[in-house]
Amino acid sequence: MVRSSRHQGFDFRFPPILKKLKRGPQVILPKDLGTIVAFSGMNKKSVVVDAGAGSGFSNVFFGSIAKKVYSFENREEFYGIAEKNIKRSGLNNIFLSNESVFEGIEKIEGEIDIINLDLPNPENIFNSKFKLSEDGYIIAYLPHMEQVALFAKIAKEKGYDCFILEAIVREIMSRERGTRPQNIGLMHTAYLVFCKTVDSLEKK
Amino acid sequence: MVRSSRHQGFDFRFPPILKKLKRGPQVILPKDLGTIVAFSGMNKKSVVVDAGAGSGFSNVFFGSIAKKVYSFENREEFYGIAEKNIKRSGLNNIFLSNESVFEGIEKIEGEIDIINLDLPNPENIFNSKFKLSEDGYIIAYLPHMEQVALFAKIAKEKGYDCFILEAIVREIMSRERGTRPQNIGLMHTAYLVFCKTVDSLEKK
Amino acid sequence: MVRSSRHQGFDFRFPPILKKLKRGPQVILPKDLGTIVAFSGMNKKSVVVDAGAGSGFSNVFFGSIAKKVYSFENREEFYGIAEKNIKRSGLNNIFLSNESVFEGIEKIEGEIDIINLDLPNPENIFNSKFKLSEDGYIIAYLPHMEQVALFAKIAKEKGYDCFILEAIVREIMSRERGTRPQNIGLMHTAYLVFCKTVDSLEKK
Amino acid sequence: MVRSSRHQGFDFRFPPILKKLKRGPQVILPKDLGTIVAFSGMNKKSVVVDAGAGSGFSNVFFGSIAKKVYSFENREEFYGIAEKNIKRSGLNNIFLSNESVFEGIEKIEGEIDIINLDLPNPENIFNSKFKLSEDGYIIAYLPHMEQVALFAKIAKEKGYDCFILEAIVREIMSRERGTRPQNIGLMHTAYLVFCKTVDSLEKK
Repeated sequence: MVRSSRHQGFDFRFPPILKKLKRGPQVILPKDLGTIVAFSGMNKKSVVVDAGAGSGFSNVFFGSIAKKVYSFENREEFYGIAEKNIKRSGLNNIFLSNESVFEGIEKIEGEIDIINLDLPNPENIFNSKFKLSEDGYIIAYLPHMEQVALFAKIAKEKGYDCFILEAIVREIMSRERGTRPQNIGLMHTAYLVFCKTVDSLEKK
Repeated sequence: MVRSSRHQGFDFRFPPILKKLKRGPQVILPKDLGTIVAFSGMNKKSVVVDAGAGSGFSNVFFGSIAKKVYSFENREEFYGIAEKNIKRSGLNNIFLSNESVFEGIEKIEGEIDIINLDLPNPENIFNSKFKLSEDGYIIAYLPHMEQVALFAKIAKEKGYDCFILEAIVREIMSRERGTRPQNIGLMHTAYLVFCKTVDSLEKK
Repeated sequence: MVRSSRHQGFDFRFPPILKKLKRGPQVILPKDLGTIVAFSGMNKKSVVVDAGAGSGFSNVFFGSIAKKVYSFENREEFYGIAEKNIKRSGLNNIFLSNESVFEGIEKIEGEIDIINLDLPNPENIFNSKFKLSEDGYIIAYLPHMEQVALFAKIAKEKGYDCFILEAIVREIMSRERGTRPQNIGLMHTAYLVFCKTVDSLEKK
Repeated sequence: MVRSSRHQGFDFRFPPILKKLKRGPQVILPKDLGTIVAFSGMNKKSVVVDAGAGSGFSNVFFGSIAKKVYSFENREEFYGIAEKNIKRSGLNNIFLSNESVFEGIEKIEGEIDIINLDLPNPENIFNSKFKLSEDGYIIAYLPHMEQVALFAKIAKEKGYDCFILEAIVREIMSRERGTRPQNIGLMHTAYLVFCKTVDSLEKK
């Protein structure tokens, strides 16, 4: 069973495709992966940028759904783990690069549908050049409220409109004694900020 | 903007692919669609059974991700709405039938990866014959605790092992005045029961 | 620091009056004690019945607020702990008896304002004779949903009207790095069922 | 039934003592009143400062429990509402003044056990002179995360140690059809910051 050291050994019910992977620190957990997919509408036509790669868990999860995933990881030790996990997944639509996403994204030709950022200072993305598709989303995964406020503020200044979500998933136990939520569980991982260009919103 | 009459007009942030659809009552909302995808590991290779079709929202969402979606809806009025919404989505991998899933599923040849049930008495599925793939999941979407307890009990008797989740997604507002969760929001839709065959679990 | 063994050592921020007490198993935690007081309107004029006494934590908490607390505990080992903790609190308005609340309550003369039940089969209270004040509440602390449904059903049959609450209290951390909820926390203790006589409701 | 305009008419299950009061805007709701009482250990010996008075709801609630409540409200329109509601409650241990708490608190002789602040810039309290009892708490009721971070930071600089709580109370419905949480409910009111002097903590 895959466990996240960040969350003290709680069992997070990873889906089959992630159970094969070698565990690394600080993965985005299924509750948040699902929220990203559902609220962005990620699907098999999507071109996704996912950075930092970290242990490659989100690369593999998004790669199993999307058309293409471009990932960036410039921390040496993570690059190696991500590379191995991507290989282990058997997926061949994930393109991992060891440069910073803020530079690497500029080399992607064609439109990007979803940019998922789980790294420090994701607001730097607004200084990079890239083509976001009409319904495209930039998503930031941010543990702290101050980061959320800063990211949302800068996004707004740059012409984006954002909404922010927090997913609390409780596990329920149903046994002969009765049915109830588990006593101890995961209260918080991160907030998810979803940003679209205001232009794309106004066209609706 | 698509709204669900079941939840009094709250705006549920439907993703682009669902915004095109005609609204019907009682759709599975993005927070739960995402939880289903993430915890089952649904991906572009997945063969999915999704019943009842209802307004077709979950059909279209799963159809945008999975290889094939078989859907069943034997309530006349819903069949029509679902059919139109599937057509509107432009997806051609969704196969809608107007019979009961409990009969229709027996005609599916080949393995099914995910069976998602949002209808009364989903436990009847355990009386049908079908081939679930090794890592396959049967998922029940159930508003009430008593339904959860009954479904989990019967699943266990039939050789399945289940976990049960509840997703609470809060929307956060970040404005000049400050950052905080919205005051009023969606507290509950349904519990999600995820069941695997015990055999498949023991092989791990 | 007082800790509850039921919840694996998490620090529950007991208020000063409870920090003096000797820890026992299975105490009602502050989040639920506060909910009981606030929604029942317990105050310094209140006559309270609180059973089972358990470790006496709720006895002492209610005793610090209410006029009188009658408590009942017929399990020998708990009676001793509760007695010591009540003595340790210095409060002299708590009356502890080692009989069952279902019998003991019949001996209380005068009106009772709040009956708080944290024991198996609290619905037996409806077979006992007691005088509930006009605005009085019977409250049951129940970990499982099935217990909640049974208690509410019987209460309704006996002429009571109930509402049911669940309190989730998250701890937030604010440090130099930023402000966010704690990762792991208490997801569930019990549901609280609050019942009033329908007569008292109709008089409003 | 008392309703809060701030929260769009949702029924918040006010306890008997608050049902008599005239509704005003922006009252502290029972879920938060209970959290304040339980985590501070407010009891019939407590001397409480509660400001701003607002509509007087928290004055009356605390007054029904504590020995004395000193309240301050320097907004003319609220002072009148609070005064009427205090009179209506029949309590004679609430002392309302129309000056700012930051000045008024300096005139209180003797120790204060609990200072509850629901007003802008509660951190100004740290510039006032007052005597907090050994186990005393300063509590701030703050809707926004930025306010929480600021208050906690200044409190720390002034020699206090704080913990921060957020109470989410869900209402559960149990009917013949089954038992489940209500669909729509109160997701957020405010964060509660509880601060003690570090001295008092170190003595433990």
